[in-house]
Amino acid sequence: MHSLETIVSWAKRKWFVYPGSDIYGGLANAWDYGPYGVQLKKNIQDLRWKTFVQMRPDMVGLDAQILMHPKVWETSGHVDNFDDPLIDDKVTGERFRADKIIEDRLEQWDLSLGQLTDTYGVKNLIPESRTFDQMHAFIVGEIPNNPNKKKKQAAEWTEVRKFQMMFYTHQGVVHDADDAKIWMRPETAQGIFVNFRNVLDTTRMRVPFGIAQVGKAFRNEITPGNFLYRTREFEQMEIEYFIAESDAQAKYAEWRELSKDRWENKVKLKSDRIRFREHESDELSHYSDGTFDVEYQYPRGRGELQGIAYRTDFDLRNHQESSGKNMQYNDPYTGERYVPHVIEPSFGLSRTVIAVMLDAYDEEQLTNSKGQEETRIVARFPFAIAPVKVAIFPLIKKDEKQVEIAKNIYASLSQHRVVEYDDGGAIGKRYRRQDEIGTPYCITVDNDSIDNGTVTIRHRDSMEQEVVVIDELVQWILNKKT
Amino acid sequence: MHSLETIVSWAKRKWFVYPGSDIYGGLANAWDYGPYGVQLKKNIQDLRWKTFVQMRPDMVGLDAQILMHPKVWETSGHVDNFDDPLIDDKVTGERFRADKIIEDRLEQWDLSLGQLTDTYGVKNLIPESRTFDQMHAFIVGEIPNNPNKKKKQAAEWTEVRKFQMMFYTHQGVVHDADDAKIWMRPETAQGIFVNFRNVLDTTRMRVPFGIAQVGKAFRNEITPGNFLYRTREFEQMEIEYFIAESDAQAKYAEWRELSKDRWENKVKLKSDRIRFREHESDELSHYSDGTFDVEYQYPRGRGELQGIAYRTDFDLRNHQESSGKNMQYNDPYTGERYVPHVIEPSFGLSRTVIAVMLDAYDEEQLTNSKGQEETRIVARFPFAIAPVKVAIFPLIKKDEKQVEIAKNIYASLSQHRVVEYDDGGAIGKRYRRQDEIGTPYCITVDNDSIDNGTVTIRHRDSMEQEVVVIDELVQWILNKKT
Repeated sequence: MHSLETIVSWAKRKWFVYPGSDIYGGLANAWDYGPYGVQLKKNIQDLRWKTFVQMRPDMVGLDAQILMHPKVWETSGHVDNFDDPLIDDKVTGERFRADKIIEDRLEQWDLSLGQLTDTYGVKNLIPESRTFDQMHAFIVGEIPNNPNKKKKQAAEWTEVRKFQMMFYTHQGVVHDADDAKIWMRPETAQGIFVNFRNVLDTTRMRVPFGIAQVGKAFRNEITPGNFLYRTREFEQMEIEYFIAESDAQAKYAEWRELSKDRWENKVKLKSDRIRFREHESDELSHYSDGTFDVEYQYPRGRGELQGIAYRTDFDLRNHQESSGKNMQYNDPYTGERYVPHVIEPSFGLSRTVIAVMLDAYDEEQLTNSKGQEETRIVARFPFAIAPVKVAIFPLIKKDEKQVEIAKNIYASLSQHRVVEYDDGGAIGKRYRRQDEIGTPYCITVDNDSIDNGTVTIRHRDSMEQEVVVIDELVQWILNKKT
Repeated sequence: MHSLETIVSWAKRKWFVYPGSDIYGGLANAWDYGPYGVQLKKNIQDLRWKTFVQMRPDMVGLDAQILMHPKVWETSGHVDNFDDPLIDDKVTGERFRADKIIEDRLEQWDLSLGQLTDTYGVKNLIPESRTFDQMHAFIVGEIPNNPNKKKKQAAEWTEVRKFQMMFYTHQGVVHDADDAKIWMRPETAQGIFVNFRNVLDTTRMRVPFGIAQVGKAFRNEITPGNFLYRTREFEQMEIEYFIAESDAQAKYAEWRELSKDRWENKVKLKSDRIRFREHESDELSHYSDGTFDVEYQYPRGRGELQGIAYRTDFDLRNHQESSGKNMQYNDPYTGERYVPHVIEPSFGLSRTVIAVMLDAYDEEQLTNSKGQEETRIVARFPFAIAPVKVAIFPLIKKDEKQVEIAKNIYASLSQHRVVEYDDGGAIGKRYRRQDEIGTPYCITVDNDSIDNGTVTIRHRDSMEQEVVVIDELVQWILNKKT
C-alpha cells in the first residue's frame, strides 16, 4: 500500500482535497474538496442514495437541520455521555485523549485485543466501558513519558476527566445567554428519530421501513488528524431501519449481507483491505444487541467505514418518554402496537472518500514509446465513482474541424455524464493527466473523425484502444455502468 | 395566489417540509425536509449543478468547510460589518430589527421607494447605506407604538445598535477561550475566494472561468420567519465567475440573460410572479458596480431568489492583502497580470424550494364521475423538478399477476428515475394522492397488461390517458425531460 503522504500529495496536486483556509495557514484538521473531490464525493453519495432510497419502496429520504432543539441531545444521552476522556501532562500543559494514547501504546506492543493481559482493565477499546480510574492507572503505569516528545521526557499526569465533544453556539438575540445555547449535531441519526412520528403520520410507510439522511455533523475531537479520517466537520449518511422486535435478527443479518455486497461488488474496495467484524459482547454499547463494523486498512491502521448496529428500541423509547409523544407503531395487519426496534447501518461519507482514494491509487512501471522506463500514476476508480467519466481530445488543437467535432461531442456527452475537454499538450501527456485523476476513457478526435465519423477510445486500465462511431457515443456511454 | 397558510398546511400534510425538532415543540424558525421535500430540493440542486457545472467546460465545483479560519471573516468584512441594526422597546424589553420595522412601516404606507419623501434619509432599503441615527430618528418619529402589540402601547426606544449575525462556536480543547472562537459561515462565497489560488494552480482553468459551491450557511437572524424564506440555517448555491475587468460589463449582461432564461424556461416560475430588477446606484454596496435581483412575489411580499452582483476585484484584492498570497492571474495569451474581477450569481436554494412550491400549488374545481363537484389539489411541478416522476399502480391489489407486473415496472423504472409504488385504495384516490405531490404520470397495470403487455399512463395536468407497451416504458421515461 502507498503511504498516506503519497496519497495526500496526489490529492493536493490534483486537487481532490486541499487544506481548508489554506491561504491563512490552514485551520487545524479542515479539508476542502476541490473540483475532482467534490465530484468523487457526490458520486459515492448519489450511488448510495440511488441504491438505498430511490430503488427501494421501503425507504424514504429526510433532511433535518444541523441545529436542533437542545432536548434532542439531552434525551439521546449526548449531553451527559458524548465526551472524550482528557488527560494533561502538567509539565508541558499539553492535553491528550486518554483513550487515544492508551490505544497507541497497545498498538506499539502489537497486541491484539485477545492477547493482552489486562492488568488495568482497559483491554476493551470501546471508551464507554472503561472507567477513568482504569485509564489513569494504565497511563501512569505504562506511559511514563510525554508521547509528543521524541526525547524521553517524564510526564506528570493529571486525573482523567470528561471533555464534551459537541460544539455549541448561541441562537437568537441574547448572545451568550445559557438559554440560547444550542448544539451542533454530532450525528445525523437523531434527526431521523425525532421525525419518525411525522413519517408514520404523513406517508404510507409500514414497518419494516427505513429513513435515510445525508449531511454534515460536527465533533470537537481533541486529537483529530490522519487526513480525512477523523475531521471535526464531516459528512455521514445514516439509515434507521424500523422493524418489529421479532424480525430483528433476520433484518440485522440482511443488512450485514447487503452491506458486504456493496463494499465488495459496487464500491469494489480491495478485498484484502476491508474487514467485516462482529463486535464481541463486551464491546457493545449498553443499548446495542449487536454491532457489525466494516473496517478499512488505512496506512496508519484499521478504521471504521461503516457500522451496522442493532439499537433495539432504545432511541424511540427515550424520545417517547422525554417528549411525551407516542412513538408506537400500529400494525394494520395484526392490530399490534409497539415501539419499533431499529437497525442502523451508518456510513461515513468523508471516510469513504479517503478509502476510495487510497484503494484506487496505483503506480505502474511502463516502457514508453521511446523505450524509456516511466511510472504511470493511475487512479483505478470504478466507472460509477470516477469523478470524470470521459475526456475528449482534439488530436490537433489548431485543426478547426477536429475542434468543432470534439466540442460537439463534449456538448452531447456532458448532458449525461461528467466529461472533460482537454486540448493541452501531446496526446501522451493528456492520457497521463486523465490517468492520474482516474478517467476511465479518453476519446480522441482525429482526421478519421472528419473522414469517417469515428473516434478512438482509449481504456484507462488496459490502455487498449477501440474505434467507435461518433453517432453511437451517447448510447456507448449510457451503457457503461460499473 | 394561495395564502402562505394553505401552502404550509399542504407542505406539512404531504411532508415536503415540517417544523424542525417538532416533537420537542419545535426550534424557532427551523424546518426539516421530509421525503418529498428532500427530493424536490435535490432536483433543483442537481438541475442547477448539471447546467452550470457539468455542462460547462469553464466551470468547476468546490466544497469548502462550514468552519473556516477566523481571518477569512475579518478580511471579508463580516466581523466588522455583518450585523443587523437592533433596537429595544424599554417598556417591554422586546428586541426588534430596526431596518425591519422601518420596512414594515414603509409597506403599510404603500410607498414605493421613489415616492417616499425622505425626511429621515432611510428611503434606501439597503441597510448598509443607512446610518443608525437616521433609523433611530425614523423609528422615534414614525413608530411611536410597540409593533408587536395589537392594542396601541407606546414604545420607549433605545438607541440603534449593532448585532453580529454570524453564529460562533469554539474549536479545540480549550472550550470558551477566545483564541478558539470560530465563526459558522454566513455565506458560501468566501470558501470560493480563499480557494481561488488553489484552483488556478492545480487545474487548467483560464480566465474567464467560474467556481460553484452548494452548501449550508448560518445567520443569526433577529426576526426570522415566513416559512422557508428567512431561516437561520439555510442552503445556498453560489458561483464566483472570474473575469478580466475589460470583460466585466459583457459578462455581467451574459449572466443576467442566462439567469432570466433559467427562471422563465427551466424552473418555469409564473411570469407574473417573478421580477428582474437592476439596483439603483444608491442601493449598491460600496464594492459593487452592479447588482441585479431576481425577486419572487411571495404571499407576504417580494423576496430575493437570486442576486447577480458585479463585485469588482474587491474580495480577491482584500484576501491578497490580508493573506500575503498572490491572487494575480497570469494571462498566458497576453502576458498580462491582474487580480481578476468577479461576477457573483448567487442563488438561494431554500428560498427557491418555497417559491417552486408556491408556484406549483393549484386547486382546480372538477365534476367527478358521480356528477359531484370536487376540488382537485394538484402541484404542477415541471417534470425535471417533480419529487416523484411516475407512480405505478396495480389496478387490483389482490391480483397476483398485476402486482408482479407492477413490481417489475417499479424495479426497472426506479433504476433511472424516482418512482413510487402505490396499491392503496381506489384508483381515483391514488390519482388524487399523486396529484397532490405533483407526480406528472401515473401508470396503471390492469388485465390488458397481462393480455397485451400494455399499461395506461394518465397525465397529471390534462388527466388524459394513453396506452404504452410495457417494454417501451424505460425509453418513454428517459425521453421525458422538462
